[in-house]
Amino acid sequence: SRFQYVKKFELSDALLPDTYLVARLDGHRFTKFTAEHGFTKPNDERGLLLMAECARQVMSEWSDLVMAFGQSDEFSFLLPASSPLYGRRSAKLSTSFVSLFSSSFVFFWPKHFPDTPLLYPPNFDARIVSYPSAQHVRDYFSWRQADCHINNLYNTCFWALVADGVSKQDAQVALKGTTSGDKNELLFSRFDTNYNEIPQRFRKGTTLFRARPTAVAAPPPPPPPETPLRQPSRQDGAAAVDGSGDKGGRGPPVESGPISATATGGETPTAGRQAGET
Amino acid sequence: SRFQYVKKFELSDALLPDTYLVARLDGHRFTKFTAEHGFTKPNDERGLLLMAECARQVMSEWSDLVMAFGQSDEFSFLLPASSPLYGRRSAKLSTSFVSLFSSSFVFFWPKHFPDTPLLYPPNFDARIVSYPSAQHVRDYFSWRQADCHINNLYNTCFWALVADGVSKQDAQVALKGTTSGDKNELLFSRFDTNYNEIPQRFRKGTTLFRARPTAVAAPPPPPPPETPLRQPSRQDGAAAVDGSGDKGGRGPPVESGPISATATGGETPTAGRQAGET
Amino acid sequence: SRFQYVKKFELSDALLPDTYLVARLDGHRFTKFTAEHGFTKPNDERGLLLMAECARQVMSEWSDLVMAFGQSDEFSFLLPASSPLYGRRSAKLSTSFVSLFSSSFVFFWPKHFPDTPLLYPPNFDARIVSYPSAQHVRDYFSWRQADCHINNLYNTCFWALVADGVSKQDAQVALKGTTSGDKNELLFSRFDTNYNEIPQRFRKGTTLFRARPTAVAAPPPPPPPETPLRQPSRQDGAAAVDGSGDKGGRGPPVESGPISATATGGETPTAGRQAGET
Amino acid sequence: SRFQYVKKFELSDALLPDTYLVARLDGHRFTKFTAEHGFTKPNDERGLLLMAECARQVMSEWSDLVMAFGQSDEFSFLLPASSPLYGRRSAKLSTSFVSLFSSSFVFFWPKHFPDTPLLYPPNFDARIVSYPSAQHVRDYFSWRQADCHINNLYNTCFWALVADGVSKQDAQVALKGTTSGDKNELLFSRFDTNYNEIPQRFRKGTTLFRARPTAVAAPPPPPPPETPLRQPSRQDGAAAVDGSGDKGGRGPPVESGPISATATGGETPTAGRQAGET
Ligand SMILES: Nc1nc2c(ncn2[C@H]2C[C@H](O)[C@@H](COP(=O)(O)OP(=O)(O)OP(=O)(O)O)O2)c(=O)[nH]1
Ligand SMILES: Nc1nc2c(ncn2[C@H]2C[C@H](O)[C@@H](COP(=O)(O)OP(=O)(O)OP(=O)(O)O)O2)c(=O)[nH]1
Ligand SMILES: Nc1nc2c(ncn2[C@H]2C[C@H](O)[C@@H](COP(=O)(O)OP(=O)(O)OP(=O)(O)O)O2)c(=O)[nH]1
Ligand SMILES: Nc1nc2c(ncn2[C@H]2C[C@H](O)[C@@H](COP(=O)(O)OP(=O)(O)OP(=O)(O)O)O2)c(=O)[nH]1
Ligand SMILES: O=P(O)(O)OP(=O)(O)OP(=O)(O)O
Ligand SMILES: O=P(O)(O)OP(=O)(O)OP(=O)(O)O
Ligand SMILES: O=P(O)(O)OP(=O)(O)OP(=O)(O)O
Ligand SMILES: O=P(O)(O)OP(=O)(O)OP(=O)(O)O
Ligand SMILES: [Mg+2]
Ligand SMILES: [Mg+2]
Ligand SMILES: [Mg+2]
Ligand SMILES: [Mg+2]
Ligand SMILES: [Mg+2]
Ligand SMILES: [Mg+2]
Ligand SMILES: [Mg+2]
Ligand SMILES: [Mg+2]
Ligand SMILES: [Mg+2]
Ligand SMILES: [Mg+2]
Ligand SMILES: [Mg+2]
Ligand SMILES: [Mg+2]
Repeated sequence: SRFQYVKKFELSDALLPDTYLVARLDGHRFTKFTAEHGFTKPNDERGLLLMAECARQVMSEWSDLVMAFGQSDEFSFLLPASSPLYGRRSAKLSTSFVSLFSSSFVFFWPKHFPDTPLLYPPNFDARIVSYPSAQHVRDYFSWRQADCHINNLYNTCFWALVADGVSKQDAQVALKGTTSGDKNELLFSRFDTNYNEIPQRFRKGTTLFRARPTAVAAPPPPPPPETPLRQPSRQDGAAAVDGSGDKGGRGPPVESGPISATATGGETPTAGRQAGET
Repeated sequence: SRFQYVKKFELSDALLPDTYLVARLDGHRFTKFTAEHGFTKPNDERGLLLMAECARQVMSEWSDLVMAFGQSDEFSFLLPASSPLYGRRSAKLSTSFVSLFSSSFVFFWPKHFPDTPLLYPPNFDARIVSYPSAQHVRDYFSWRQADCHINNLYNTCFWALVADGVSKQDAQVALKGTTSGDKNELLFSRFDTNYNEIPQRFRKGTTLFRARPTAVAAPPPPPPPETPLRQPSRQDGAAAVDGSGDKGGRGPPVESGPISATATGGETPTAGRQAGET
Repeated sequence: SRFQYVKKFELSDALLPDTYLVARLDGHRFTKFTAEHGFTKPNDERGLLLMAECARQVMSEWSDLVMAFGQSDEFSFLLPASSPLYGRRSAKLSTSFVSLFSSSFVFFWPKHFPDTPLLYPPNFDARIVSYPSAQHVRDYFSWRQADCHINNLYNTCFWALVADGVSKQDAQVALKGTTSGDKNELLFSRFDTNYNEIPQRFRKGTTLFRARPTAVAAPPPPPPPETPLRQPSRQDGAAAVDGSGDKGGRGPPVESGPISATATGGETPTAGRQAGET
Repeated sequence: SRFQYVKKFELSDALLPDTYLVARLDGHRFTKFTAEHGFTKPNDERGLLLMAECARQVMSEWSDLVMAFGQSDEFSFLLPASSPLYGRRSAKLSTSFVSLFSSSFVFFWPKHFPDTPLLYPPNFDARIVSYPSAQHVRDYFSWRQADCHINNLYNTCFWALVADGVSKQDAQVALKGTTSGDKNELLFSRFDTNYNEIPQRFRKGTTLFRARPTAVAAPPPPPPPETPLRQPSRQDGAAAVDGSGDKGGRGPPVESGPISATATGGETPTAGRQAGET
């Protein structure tokens, strides 16, 4: 038709070839959303498992995705540098991922929050970032995981103080300027809590890997040198995306694990699996 | 932290100032999705009302949006040229819109498909296009509405023939090369159907306008000079977005209306219509 | 060859269709360059004529260019919104324009500076900006012309004071915070100079139009409403680009003129011509 | 001023951090330019030396540039991945480089073509391409050098045949479908020419390195493994950019050399130097 010319205004947004693509999704106003839906503080296990389920849904739909990492109201997804998915068009990738994540969030809500009605549909934003090297990708996930750690340590202390009767303002003042060591010490001495015994999912976030049938061309980036390498101990051929959080109480939750779990290089060609699993 | 440098790889994707921004969302593999969920052919009223409800949800969340137009598995949203929403960042806009649309689709599914369980979460893609002038915007919506008209006329004939016992292949052959006039004639002579009496929503898609309390700075593009301007005859202070489809059987569905309201050519002067008009 | 894949890394940089394209070139470190080549202060007629000749060279090479405006060490070029030049690729346009401008600067240097050897090759940067409407383009050129006016009025006062024996520092202090009126008054009362009698080229910059044989599809943007319309008084079919600066002393220099000279709308279809020409 | 808002339409064009940036310049219509200026065929030593001098000028101006490679009417320049030059703004980089190259071409013309007046100022285009890894950069320069080799071998045969009285058309037919081996053989048997004895500059293009005072953070990419490493044999502290072509007849021209000359790793901290130098 004579109106079709308007299609020409759609400019190319292809991303640089041979760069790793990371999509980060983040909940819009989740401070409000979590409060209105009675999320436990500082971490709501149900919420984290729901987020992980949405992420698995995304990884199942687009088999190019090789790993994902989530914490708080966010999830990041990794495409290998060689991925030709959607011609590497930025908007096509980011909008498709965030769309399925969002619809999944509502779809799986009742499974994880059987007693809490969803009051309104939430939304997330997303962005795609190109990274030239595997080291950048490792640093990216380290950045997100460090964010998880720092926020969680702070929030754990904060809410412990509040639960102990300290006012929010006083709790804030008490924590101001404290180091990580101070906070660990506070938890231990005042609340008899060993921070390292808090669920790994809370401290380190959730990492998902694609189970790869063979050693392939584009492995997820290896862990930084200083990180002790924890090997996956078993294989799960059934699930395309490993790390189901539905498996109950037998040890550390399978989808949770440190980002060093990305270390599933040539030594362990048989399966992608998050670290810490027994 | 020392990892924070990775944030610098997020490049600016701000859109050109003073251009109209149109976001178009489209269902991913909806040929399959509609078949698997038993959508009636060629148009499923429930599906169209669900899509419209999702679009209203989006318009309610972002008050900068001034109108929307939907048909088939797609919806387009218009931001005025002056909108500063999210700094006009392309990804922030497209991902936020498509995210809320997608979560709303699942959220409102049971209301519109009470007897049909949703089998899996669907997803949509989205893109943002800049248009320099109001004429481009009119042509854009004319393009989408022409697409609606052409597909719907064809599909109406096709499924009428199939319902009449013609094989799909024969129906395709029969329609090949026919004009709009031929198809109208076929419907009338063989099926006693006046195409113009088919529900407007099917023929012209769904147009939503924001009810504007006063003449404001950023109106939707005005109609071409030849189009008589018809004012909405009532105001709806309750709904931020006018044209709720929930209001039952009193006349033409309020959210439905031809986009030709924004720009209907000289041939169809009567059909310019906007929501809320009686 | 097996290396050819590297070509794929050249991403599209096409500019939005149907927008006016303005290329602005600016001399790199011309504070230093003009000092080292003994340019007269604040304006060097030879330098301005050389710049204009380079601009005409650019306009002659690319017939899509419809006008240009220059002042100080910069020149801006206008492509109509409909121009398909080089597929509207940003880098192709900006680099081609700046390249010819730069080579022309050296090529024509001896003609304008017969007694001053060029010590080293200078360079310019360039950028292309998209503007959605004619009003933006008018405002763009008004912006550059206002810059010319303000700088020139200030510099005229500053160098007059310095020539009068005032130290540079004292001159700066004397002018600090003065209005345009103050400066006009200073020139008049202390230096017996009527600012409006200073050469137009210095006060208003240099505007070049393409002589258009007929009223064509893409006229230069009309002047802002408040600008008195000065009509071109004669036609010059010979020169593709009007405004040669080589024509000697007969009245105001032909390539110089206020930006309102862009007013070559439908009323004056016979010629593009800058204002002020006799 | 109230016009200043137009500045906001200048959108960011920053290139991805930590990627190698390659700028390629190419002569506009040099088929015509070289013919009109009587360049010798297939290679004009004067033209190649002029191009190299322009490239050295560019490298001298921007010390971030670490190497350059030229052949025919083109030159490519390399910025290390870490370069912060001009905030990595694409247009600023490409236009500045091409501008100085172009003005230098006219400036140095009389030195290299003392007997040939320059008829008009030429122009070049330029583009910047991001490459994620050193391997991409090596492949890029290999691509340009392979282009040099293939064209030169063909042209050498073609013009030898033409000089021998063969018509241009017949020469074309004779060379159609021939391999490199065929062409080497033709030159040897019919024209008694050993292709490898043709000046290196013609066969392999011109490579320029920056002389680096110390082993620095961002070395030029090392040569591909199969390339024998040729060490620079002396140092030139005088020229910031090595490889002056002005040094007369003492052996192979210093700025000429195979791209494998990029091999100036940590072992040779004293100087960057192109291959083939004695
Ligand atoms: N109670 C509770 N809150 C959580 C949990 N996970 C995330 N949140 C809350 C904590 C933060 O207020 C918020 C996430 O921080 P953001 O920086 O993303 O802020 P928010 O989403 O409010 O704003 P945004 O729209 O992203 O700019 O979500 C949880 O498990 N339990
Ligand atoms: N039965 C039925 N089908 C519909 C209705 N609305 C849309 N569809 C179907 C018809 C088309 O096959 C499809 C929309 O066309 P598209 O070009 O968007 O194709 P699809 O979504 O399959 O592929 P895509 O992922 O967008 O490339 O959705 C409806 O109301 N009833
Ligand atoms: N004496 C003299 N100087 C002039 C003339 N035209 C321009 N200039 C000088 C005045 C300014 O110092 C300079 C132009 O200002 P810019 O803001 O472009 O500065 P400059 O080129 O030094 O720096 P840049 O590399 O553009 O950031 O050129 C002239 O006709 N005579
Ligand atoms: N005779 C002669 N010609 C040369 C020499 N170096 C380059 N040329 C010519 C050969 C080619 O026709 C031309 C370079 O090829 P291009 O593909 O860049 O073509 P051209 O510049 O004509 O078109 P363009 O504007 O780049 O698309 O320059 C030389 O040393 N001697
Ligand atoms: O943490 P981010 O990157 O989401 O940072 P922000 O402050 O939320 O900014 P935005 O989402 O607007 O990029
Ligand atoms: O109709 P469109 O624009 O969605 O066209 P398409 O053929 O679906 O292409 P894509 O969605 O990949 O842009
Ligand atoms: O006047 P401009 O736009 O050139 O502004 P600037 O301060 O010189 O900045 P840049 O040339 O780096 O854009
Ligand atoms: O060799 P290139 O990349 O210059 O290729 P081209 O065919 O000249 O195309 P363009 O210069 O228009 O990119
Ligand atoms: Mg954010
Ligand atoms: Mg959030
Ligand atoms: Mg967050
Ligand atoms: Mg599509
Ligand atoms: Mg679809
Ligand atoms: Mg569709
Ligand atoms: Mg500048
Ligand atoms: Mg300057
Ligand atoms: Mg300047
Ligand atoms: Mg080219
Ligand atoms: Mg060329
Ligand atoms: Mg070339």
